[in-house]
Amino acid sequence: MDLKIGVIKGDGIGPEIVTEAMKVLDRVAEKYGHICTYEQLLMGGASIDVHGIPLTDETIEKAKACEAVLMGSIGGDAKTSPWYQLEPSKRPEAGLLKIRKALNLFANLRPAVLYDELKGACPLKEEITEGGFDMMIMRELTGGLYFGERKTVEEDGVMTAYDSLTYNENEIRRIARRGFDIARKRRKKVTSVDKANVLDSSRLWRKVVEEVAKEYPDVTLEHMLVDNCAMQLVKDPKQFDVILTENMFGDILSDEASMVTGSIGMLASASLNETKFGLYEPSGGSAPDIAGKGIANPIATILSAAMMLRFSFDLDKEADAIEEAVAKALKEGYRTVDIMSEGKKQVGTSEMGSLIAGFI
Amino acid sequence: MDLKIGVIKGDGIGPEIVTEAMKVLDRVAEKYGHICTYEQLLMGGASIDVHGIPLTDETIEKAKACEAVLMGSIGGDAKTSPWYQLEPSKRPEAGLLKIRKALNLFANLRPAVLYDELKGACPLKEEITEGGFDMMIMRELTGGLYFGERKTVEEDGVMTAYDSLTYNENEIRRIARRGFDIARKRRKKVTSVDKANVLDSSRLWRKVVEEVAKEYPDVTLEHMLVDNCAMQLVKDPKQFDVILTENMFGDILSDEASMVTGSIGMLASASLNETKFGLYEPSGGSAPDIAGKGIANPIATILSAAMMLRFSFDLDKEADAIEEAVAKALKEGYRTVDIMSEGKKQVGTSEMGSLIAGFI
Ligand SMILES: CC(C)[C@H](C(=O)O)[C@@H](O)C(=O)O
Ligand SMILES: CC(C)[C@H](C(=O)O)[C@@H](O)C(=O)O
Repeated sequence: MDLKIGVIKGDGIGPEIVTEAMKVLDRVAEKYGHICTYEQLLMGGASIDVHGIPLTDETIEKAKACEAVLMGSIGGDAKTSPWYQLEPSKRPEAGLLKIRKALNLFANLRPAVLYDELKGACPLKEEITEGGFDMMIMRELTGGLYFGERKTVEEDGVMTAYDSLTYNENEIRRIARRGFDIARKRRKKVTSVDKANVLDSSRLWRKVVEEVAKEYPDVTLEHMLVDNCAMQLVKDPKQFDVILTENMFGDILSDEASMVTGSIGMLASASLNETKFGLYEPSGGSAPDIAGKGIANPIATILSAAMMLRFSFDLDKEADAIEEAVAKALKEGYRTVDIMSEGKKQVGTSEMGSLIAGFI
Repeated sequence: MDLKIGVIKGDGIGPEIVTEAMKVLDRVAEKYGHICTYEQLLMGGASIDVHGIPLTDETIEKAKACEAVLMGSIGGDAKTSPWYQLEPSKRPEAGLLKIRKALNLFANLRPAVLYDELKGACPLKEEITEGGFDMMIMRELTGGLYFGERKTVEEDGVMTAYDSLTYNENEIRRIARRGFDIARKRRKKVTSVDKANVLDSSRLWRKVVEEVAKEYPDVTLEHMLVDNCAMQLVKDPKQFDVILTENMFGDILSDEASMVTGSIGMLASASLNETKFGLYEPSGGSAPDIAGKGIANPIATILSAAMMLRFSFDLDKEADAIEEAVAKALKEGYRTVDIMSEGKKQVGTSEMGSLIAGFI
């Protein structure tokens, strides 16, 4: 099979970790008889440096012509990087928002998994995490406060800023269906998170999610208020299977959940549209402080490549092979510095990539 | 001194825990030569039962005539209580939103403290919490998404819901000043939390907070994005002194922080306006499942009464006396069931109140 993959290496540790994911993809291609063609795309700071803006229309067109895009990470150090002298709409992260909307990537999947091998890094006490946990956050990614109208105006000498949060039933229905579809393949439970005791958008959210739930009689639905969910993630993360929520709540809760695992360097993510197309990236940031040092953990990006094979190319066997190779590297005691613990073997970015490729 | 205190016993465990706080207040009054006069006010479910709505205008006027209001908790079991058959604007919690706005209670203070005696209940590993932590969340309480215009409309057969998030510079300035004032009396650090990479309201927030910071050269200001803050609360809660944030982010982060302490039954809160007036209530909910059983933890409400003496009546010595009595009860090993651990003495709601009163 020919796989046409867009590659956004991105900023900070992005180029290093994407290189390792490509190494692993090439090994998979070799073993299973596929051909990967990579189209390099510029986004974020790297695009500002070349084009003056974080994402050009040409890049969007090129991305659309690919079957999937693999991305490193976007952004730099807000305190020192010249990118952050620009106004917000021209900064690296603006490219991310623009590509999500332009490619209609409304379904953002973020797994939050406690790796048994990495329990030591989990900030929660063992009695809470015993037996492990494995949840999937399904975040709506192209609506809500992120893409509502906004303005800042002076009225009678007083500055006032406005943002707006809008959802229509179709936007809610399509993400809800994605959430239930995923739950069906997992432990068959959806926790829909909203703030229905305050927001109209949340009340519509709840209503539409309940309608969708009727199409999935085999899946259990529960509703949870966002403030309560922020508590439950710390108190009892095991209770969750799929968390389904809107854009801003999903931003906050998915980051909280990823930190609760203690293994942010291990967490992949996928952003999907109505077709098979998806943008795949690690959950963590661009970590400019360790960029270029060869010590970043490439596993989140490698696992994002596995998600890509699974969701965009239906290559489940190949995706499994990557996930198993990652598990093997961990089991054999190999660790990058962020997940290092006593008695394990510390390796760099490139060595970790090679080890995982070698296990395939 | 004459203290004219409004009392909203509220729903669920509310009446039980407020009774204990009054017991403690009466003991303080006796010892220090004050007279407490209580005006019983109805709000929430208790008001719906009598008046059909969660808060009457008459109650608002009565509350305004008091110097401070002590409250238990509002709301019932959303699955079984008839209150939740009503439309959202008529449910118990709507009373809470209405009184905040009517009394202009824009500054919500929520301490999140790890009690050394209760470390066992903290969900975080000891290496993270070593040495303890003590932060204050300063949440804006009368603006933002909570009080913006909202509507749900059908357009071309599609339901669409709108909420709006507005802040003007004056609203931001007054809460920021409160945050810096509090920080000045503490460890002199403010972490202002926003989503300035997306929201106009957050960009205005950041700008105004920076202006206010210039009035407080002795206090350190740092900015943090809300998604990162949700992570940092779990990763390293010790880094925080005062967290200053807008209404919705404050709702989510203060609940997360309270759960991170593991001692939600211990956490007080205050909601203040421009005058000395304040509404004081425990951080936890109405816990309808244990209502009437005499086992609820009254300490959060007792500590809320201490905050009331401190903020609304400037009775610092009396507030200290309550806090010391609570510490003593804990030190002597008394515990309600929610904070019970091996080797400690389990007591009920009323016994805990009497013990604390007795230690004053
Ligand atoms: C960079 C930022 C705009 C982005 C978001 O808020 O969506 C990031 O936090 C994320 O979660 O992917
Ligand atoms: C009951 C609800 C409306 C309220 C809020 O969201 O403010 C509560 O969660 C709180 O934090 O006091």
